[in-house]
Amino acid sequence: MSSAYPTVRLRPKAEARAIRHGFPWIYADELVTDRRTQALVPGTIAVLEDAERRPLGVVTVNPKSKIIARMLDRDAETVIDRDWIAARIARATALRDRLYDKPYYRLIHAEADGLPGVIIDRFGDAAVIQPNAAWAEAMSADLAGALADVTGVTTIIKNGTGRARGLEGLVEEMAVLSGGLDAPVPVPMNGATYLADLIGGQKTGLFFDQRDNHAFAARLGRGGKMLDVFSHVGGFALASLAGGAERALAVDASAAALDLAGQGAAASDFGDRFETRKGDAFAVMEELGQEGAVFDLVVCDPPAFAPSKPALQAGLRAYERVARLAAPLVAPGGYLALCSCSHAADLTQFRNASARGIGRGGRRGQLLHTGFAGPDHPQLPQLAESGYLKALFFRLDG
Amino acid sequence: MSSAYPTVRLRPKAEARAIRHGFPWIYADELVTDRRTQALVPGTIAVLEDAERRPLGVVTVNPKSKIIARMLDRDAETVIDRDWIAARIARATALRDRLYDKPYYRLIHAEADGLPGVIIDRFGDAAVIQPNAAWAEAMSADLAGALADVTGVTTIIKNGTGRARGLEGLVEEMAVLSGGLDAPVPVPMNGATYLADLIGGQKTGLFFDQRDNHAFAARLGRGGKMLDVFSHVGGFALASLAGGAERALAVDASAAALDLAGQGAAASDFGDRFETRKGDAFAVMEELGQEGAVFDLVVCDPPAFAPSKPALQAGLRAYERVARLAAPLVAPGGYLALCSCSHAADLTQFRNASARGIGRGGRRGQLLHTGFAGPDHPQLPQLAESGYLKALFFRLDG
Repeated sequence: MSSAYPTVRLRPKAEARAIRHGFPWIYADELVTDRRTQALVPGTIAVLEDAERRPLGVVTVNPKSKIIARMLDRDAETVIDRDWIAARIARATALRDRLYDKPYYRLIHAEADGLPGVIIDRFGDAAVIQPNAAWAEAMSADLAGALADVTGVTTIIKNGTGRARGLEGLVEEMAVLSGGLDAPVPVPMNGATYLADLIGGQKTGLFFDQRDNHAFAARLGRGGKMLDVFSHVGGFALASLAGGAERALAVDASAAALDLAGQGAAASDFGDRFETRKGDAFAVMEELGQEGAVFDLVVCDPPAFAPSKPALQAGLRAYERVARLAAPLVAPGGYLALCSCSHAADLTQFRNASARGIGRGGRRGQLLHTGFAGPDHPQLPQLAESGYLKALFFRLDG
Repeated sequence: MSSAYPTVRLRPKAEARAIRHGFPWIYADELVTDRRTQALVPGTIAVLEDAERRPLGVVTVNPKSKIIARMLDRDAETVIDRDWIAARIARATALRDRLYDKPYYRLIHAEADGLPGVIIDRFGDAAVIQPNAAWAEAMSADLAGALADVTGVTTIIKNGTGRARGLEGLVEEMAVLSGGLDAPVPVPMNGATYLADLIGGQKTGLFFDQRDNHAFAARLGRGGKMLDVFSHVGGFALASLAGGAERALAVDASAAALDLAGQGAAASDFGDRFETRKGDAFAVMEELGQEGAVFDLVVCDPPAFAPSKPALQAGLRAYERVARLAAPLVAPGGYLALCSCSHAADLTQFRNASARGIGRGGRRGQLLHTGFAGPDHPQLPQLAESGYLKALFFRLDG
């Protein structure tokens, strides 16, 4: 072994087979956690061996995390450096170049793109890195350097505000690693222009994951009035207007998000076809119901109501309530799109909660389409059960 | 009650709640099956009452079927006639007109479009009806008349060869109900022209359900060589060529299907970019492996290997074998699409079998996209678990 990395070892009973077949994680109870391993600095790069001391690959170790090791490379001789990171980014870029005309997309989607715990979103000449694992935090200068080398981006923001960082023992932090920004970045998507605030916004200022679902909604919204509840920076509203909706009303509790949505509508030349109403989404839906408002298309894309197993039942009740309040706002024969970005609520549970809510809202419907996150959010097949984003498109009765 | 229809009644213990909430089927053990009900001619229209004799709607009854009654209309006063059918077809047409530029699509998808057991596919001026339930068989003249009234189609084929007919006690039959055809019908889809043999072909001669998955594959196949295994009339191959693939090789055991694929390629002006190889798909994949052939995109869209629960385990092994044989044919960093149209194999089972096969084929991959049948194949939310078509798109390692 020429590697300069320390060694960690699976316990005799641990199952090396899953790892050999592509599972990327080693849980704390699968690793020999002697004092030496316990003392490793979070983010240490190490060689993983099976119980018979056969090397399985290079991993990153975090003794503080339940996922105590994550596979980086199955070649145990590999050196994890800026060049290695650059090769992973180049492979990910090749996929996105094939899928998208312009460089606005999720460029690195963590494990599935071979960089565990790392998220990188690309916004033209700018990019946002989320180093949500200790190894990535430690190597964030190499990450930024490799990213600039491969893509030529000139502005790189580090967004260290993700929930996942807490589990890795990392602190919250926002930093400009190179270049700079003095205004929101215009993002072309589905024929509209969005404005992404890469420093002040939620997560990376814009969610690319809904792009294909925005496009499907736009097909349904053509020529009619649409309502975008939990609109954030106007995701479904602006795509629908670009696709030919006559009018769109965006509802969100955040004035800052609605302001960016309005800027996007202006940049897209939608004029007075775009309106906003600031407020609690549930309250606004109730108000609209009392006003007798109806829309040809209603979309609800709420925050994760069931982010974890303990929150599941309350989360499902919240999704049902969204559906119950939204369904009466849909015109006869119109369309209703309901989204969930909750890991804990699987597709069947979310669909059942949505159908129940539609029924309690006094309507029946056909399910036309089930969409997930776009292909710039790949998954490892072994982790695909955790696909978090679901979008259900219904047509309601006449 | 002004209805002239006979009455059938739920048993006291039967759950009227599911039916009130939109579930469309009544199973044999839920209905009072006295001698009078047993004697009803299959396809009889009747009024369904709950155990307290409150009307629940108009149903069609087939005492020979496990699904003894299917909901037609929740208004118990409704008369089921040509006008009623026409209203259902008009509602379905409005949805498809919104989704598609040209009238080539599944127009009626059974229960979800309000016509239980009825499939209608539209091919421009022609349409194919599959009356897979006894009531629809009995009313096929009204179905054809209403279809012509609403859509203006001039040729109507009745395709009575579906497996479902056996369960309803119906015989196999193929008939021209109006107009006529002397050649395969050209079908524009995803920029290519397909040829559909509406009388001689499988089912309705062309499967519309894969349209969106064809389109996604075409994005992946641009500029490269693609292989379409179980090609039928060239579904993925012609879409990929239209999307910019350099060459496509279509494999199928049916000379007739490959001949139609070739006619489609000619009609699409693909010249010698399209080739075919007739043979057993497994054998041809093994041959190609021995020849050292590699493709930038490989698609496998086999027939249903697990059409029913008893066939599940053997079916999953067949899907795994498809993946194992196909994976080595994919170039480094290339794409693999694996499809299942098996009701019995759910998404998780099919994905696991596919991932296992890819691993046994010596490869690893990212899952980019999961696609289902297109939105002209709507589902009732209450029956959505049975969504039969799954398409998994992988990128394989370099």
